[in-house]
Amino acid sequence: MASSVFSDSSSPAAARLLPLSVRSRTSQFQRSISIAWRPLDLSAIRSTVSPRRSLSASAAVAMTTETSAKVIDGKAVAKQIKDEIAGEIVRMKDGIGIVPGLAVILVGSRKDSQTYVRNKKKACEAVGIKSYEANLPEDSTEEEVLKNIARFNDDPSVHGILVQLPLPRHMNEEKILNAVSIEKDVDGFHPLNIGRLAMQGRDPLFVPCTPKGCMELLHTYGVEIKGKRAVVIGRSNIVGMPAALLLQKANATISMVHSNTRNPEEITRQADIIISAAGVANLVRGSWIKPGAVVIDVGINPVDDAESPRGYRLVGDVCYEEACKVASAITPVPGGVGPMTIAMLLSNTLSSAKRIHDFK
Amino acid sequence: MASSVFSDSSSPAAARLLPLSVRSRTSQFQRSISIAWRPLDLSAIRSTVSPRRSLSASAAVAMTTETSAKVIDGKAVAKQIKDEIAGEIVRMKDGIGIVPGLAVILVGSRKDSQTYVRNKKKACEAVGIKSYEANLPEDSTEEEVLKNIARFNDDPSVHGILVQLPLPRHMNEEKILNAVSIEKDVDGFHPLNIGRLAMQGRDPLFVPCTPKGCMELLHTYGVEIKGKRAVVIGRSNIVGMPAALLLQKANATISMVHSNTRNPEEITRQADIIISAAGVANLVRGSWIKPGAVVIDVGINPVDDAESPRGYRLVGDVCYEEACKVASAITPVPGGVGPMTIAMLLSNTLSSAKRIHDFK
Repeated sequence: MASSVFSDSSSPAAARLLPLSVRSRTSQFQRSISIAWRPLDLSAIRSTVSPRRSLSASAAVAMTTETSAKVIDGKAVAKQIKDEIAGEIVRMKDGIGIVPGLAVILVGSRKDSQTYVRNKKKACEAVGIKSYEANLPEDSTEEEVLKNIARFNDDPSVHGILVQLPLPRHMNEEKILNAVSIEKDVDGFHPLNIGRLAMQGRDPLFVPCTPKGCMELLHTYGVEIKGKRAVVIGRSNIVGMPAALLLQKANATISMVHSNTRNPEEITRQADIIISAAGVANLVRGSWIKPGAVVIDVGINPVDDAESPRGYRLVGDVCYEEACKVASAITPVPGGVGPMTIAMLLSNTLSSAKRIHDFK
Repeated sequence: MASSVFSDSSSPAAARLLPLSVRSRTSQFQRSISIAWRPLDLSAIRSTVSPRRSLSASAAVAMTTETSAKVIDGKAVAKQIKDEIAGEIVRMKDGIGIVPGLAVILVGSRKDSQTYVRNKKKACEAVGIKSYEANLPEDSTEEEVLKNIARFNDDPSVHGILVQLPLPRHMNEEKILNAVSIEKDVDGFHPLNIGRLAMQGRDPLFVPCTPKGCMELLHTYGVEIKGKRAVVIGRSNIVGMPAALLLQKANATISMVHSNTRNPEEITRQADIIISAAGVANLVRGSWIKPGAVVIDVGINPVDDAESPRGYRLVGDVCYEEACKVASAITPVPGGVGPMTIAMLLSNTLSSAKRIHDFK
């Protein structure tokens, strides 16, 4: 291994990330970090590379290739945030006797959805959030789902409600999502939240978890956003669109690349910050990336891999091997944005409980 | 006068614009036009220029300069739309005995606001929409404004409500605008409408009038949007942001240029379609425009003019004299987007009345 992907290893990761304080307003989560890092100055980063002391599993994978980009360690940032949330929950319980509660509604028996719900439950337990669950059979009626949403809307011990998607085909997703009380919409998918996100001078009650996680990573790693060119690849309601709105709110100059874009490579190459949420394995090649750009890869795409015991492995939208020779910083897949999404869900649930009970 | 700014003068304007049908869904207002016009092929346009038979006042102004760009005649398009609205209102009255009603709330005595309100009233009368008005003194309380909004919300003869902005400084604009029933928010400023505009698979009840007018002009003039690069200059809640969302919904690749953008000229020059809503006179120079681009100028900026009886004249954000040598088509100021805004307000009011009374 000739060089490391890490640059700030002289300071332990925990120290580098401190002080982290979980805040409720997305537009205000800029953090001070102990070592100022210049993300767009490749030479400065290269000159400081040295091996890191302790490695997570995902980081170890990243180190098997020769790279120059700083690896944005979502797992470590997420852990730090979860630790802070756990501390806040203790403080809240001690202070006003309230424990935040998150309700998840799962309809049907999709294996992937069951896994996601189980992971969310585990993450809640780990930080002290109480989980509530409604498991409904695949052939439930819309009315049954709506009845459960209404029950959680009315339950004062529930501060966040999420409906695991996708719903069975016979259900109207829009109607069901709109039934979640805006005060408990911790997924931030309600159009009222999206509208407030889009508008100047308005703030949403909740920001969708994955794009919020992307912004947290940028802020934590000290990436300047104001005035920078940012390209978002993909325009889904749950990632691409809100990510673009958040970047725009942070005063980046945004462009949105999608399936109808004729020259995605050319446009992406103009970006100082790339957030890719296209769901296409290895879509973003090294040639798409401006030297020194920061790359946030939201994609989690399975590709065949005979050497893996499962027969496949997970890769992002970005061709990692190529990208880390060009970018100044990049999130790995897995271990980048993924862990942040769940941390943001917990953060949104805590914020909701604080807001409902007016606990500062 | 060596050349004309008009190209399709072999067919009368009315025929060229027909069939115009006022539709309630923005995403569906693509129209068929009798002469297909290729907006990005400058040579094709240049070869067909010839004098037009009848000219509006604003068009005559445009013709005093030597140009090659087609002038997008907002006044003519708006007239056509208003004629259609008038026809629909007669049909509705004859069919179900309902006349659409628009209520305007004016607080204070700003001269410009009074003029706008008077013009809206006149425009309503011209198409057969009944106007309602609440004129409140400058020192009214928020509660008085909210009481008037509540009254119009409950009044079944009112199908659209608009609060003339700006409100006096002591009032909370957000709180007051949010009080307008979402079903009567013909301005389309409610965050729920903006959220639906941003989201795929959702449709707002109303699209804000000025950006809707911009899109109508593009559609009427047969400008292809899908896959094109579109740059929106300015990111206000009432024009720039919703314009970008509309272009994105129409499958353009959008970029947003604003006060924090470091290289606005370079980015704007990549655009096939430019919508400028910056409010800065002559901001967009000829050098900012890609040859053949279509330019929609939303700005209405007063500049000193000793030769004018008023001491000033109105210009757009775009340096018109330079732009029309480069662009393939451009809206004049005045006579471009301006007349469209009020036509769209009438259109939204009609749509609202149709929706409330389920009249097809």
